[in-house]
Amino acid sequence: MTTQKTGVPRRTDRRALLGATVAAAAGSVLAGAAPAAAGARPSAPAPEPAPLPASGGGAGPRVGVLLYEGFSLLDPTGPSEVLSRLPGASVTMIGEHAGPVRTDTRDVAVLADASLDEVDRLDVLLVPGGGLEGTVGAIENPRLREWIGRVHRRTRWTTSVCTGSLILAAAGLLTGRRATTHWASAEYIEDTYGVTYVPERYVRSGRILTAAGVSAGIDLALHLAAELTDERTARAIQLAIEYDPAPPFDSGDAGEADQELKDLALRLLSDSAAR
Amino acid sequence: MTTQKTGVPRRTDRRALLGATVAAAAGSVLAGAAPAAAGARPSAPAPEPAPLPASGGGAGPRVGVLLYEGFSLLDPTGPSEVLSRLPGASVTMIGEHAGPVRTDTRDVAVLADASLDEVDRLDVLLVPGGGLEGTVGAIENPRLREWIGRVHRRTRWTTSVCTGSLILAAAGLLTGRRATTHWASAEYIEDTYGVTYVPERYVRSGRILTAAGVSAGIDLALHLAAELTDERTARAIQLAIEYDPAPPFDSGDAGEADQELKDLALRLLSDSAAR
Repeated sequence: MTTQKTGVPRRTDRRALLGATVAAAAGSVLAGAAPAAAGARPSAPAPEPAPLPASGGGAGPRVGVLLYEGFSLLDPTGPSEVLSRLPGASVTMIGEHAGPVRTDTRDVAVLADASLDEVDRLDVLLVPGGGLEGTVGAIENPRLREWIGRVHRRTRWTTSVCTGSLILAAAGLLTGRRATTHWASAEYIEDTYGVTYVPERYVRSGRILTAAGVSAGIDLALHLAAELTDERTARAIQLAIEYDPAPPFDSGDAGEADQELKDLALRLLSDSAAR
Repeated sequence: MTTQKTGVPRRTDRRALLGATVAAAAGSVLAGAAPAAAGARPSAPAPEPAPLPASGGGAGPRVGVLLYEGFSLLDPTGPSEVLSRLPGASVTMIGEHAGPVRTDTRDVAVLADASLDEVDRLDVLLVPGGGLEGTVGAIENPRLREWIGRVHRRTRWTTSVCTGSLILAAAGLLTGRRATTHWASAEYIEDTYGVTYVPERYVRSGRILTAAGVSAGIDLALHLAAELTDERTARAIQLAIEYDPAPPFDSGDAGEADQELKDLALRLLSDSAAR
């Protein structure tokens, strides 16, 4: 095996690398925004790391994602991947305090770039779900609940993924409403918060959108992308992230799963969070 | 609207919250590992944040994810969500240096918990893709290429998502092989690195697995989960993350997209990365 060989071409034709010739020919969707590829030249030196993001990307929606210790990694990152592609959008990770916030498995930390105190106005609020301890911690945190309730009053959309809907419910946002959540929390959200659980990928209730477990946030985000712009833009984002899902198995629907597989799924969740 | 009302139940029945009664009854899959729910009691105070993760979770696979400035957020986080649920697994984010590493849109930073120097042995290496600048930056970074080649020699699986396969190719790992990548980079990987592009969700070539664009990493990871354990465990993880995808549109397949939608997709990618 030729692992010593460097495969760097003498001329890194950057414009070809991501089909950027096409992108440059198509022009820019944002007035005044230079396409990334247009200024790049073959054989130019490697780019310097860009500075920290501006707080607002442009005229697009301001999306804020609430992180808390013990969130599940894909819950905020799937939707953020989608929504950050919207023209002029900004996506900001928000924590009770700024700094790293670790996932339920403790394997990964995402940086909260802003604290609760720094954010009081968002177009879109997204509350991810988490493991058992993380979700309970958020539910029992009065600062998070109060902040969610306050920010929600002026959002265009307030959204959740997985057990994030329990946190919205704990903040008083879902009483008497229809919503979804992770399949294992369906009974809990009904019994505790008077919510009607709907077993769909995402459920709209007024300007609140809730998604089912973990991966369903991606589907919710594509729907939301169309609401915030138009269907064609949402379709283009789906193509940009090549979201043409083809899981090797067909076992993601709790409605069709046997009890033994459900038990194993919950055991893997609790064990990975307990490490 | 009752946003002032706190919806915290007087008794937070934690065991019910994530169907954890079921999980506890099923016992623990790891000898000596206490299920997260078993020690929790109703009305107990909110848990303290857990300490930083141990470097190894147990007897499971050691997964390392290479982060570099300008990676695309979902590329590493989708597979990490899946692989971190494997019994005893550890997932470590690795950067050229430890510390925050920012995405192509600059919106989000994920913490690299380890630097290249700290890691020389992994069961699974995953190299995510990135935007144009990020991918080129990684391709042109001799330290990254050298590290990938060296670590690859002893992995069980070396994997990539999206344009991460260009980085594997630049490290000399894919010459003369079949692989996939983001649809917009298909010509580039063929012309530059002598790779045969295969338009599938993921492609196996020996012990190298490459995934198509961005979201395809989740499909790859479920396949890999089955390879590392067994199909039943992989199916349970799929259920745990409720991966029963139902995108609101059907436009994720570049093979079926018209040129105009492709142009728009590439423009959204380059504009969001240029902000």
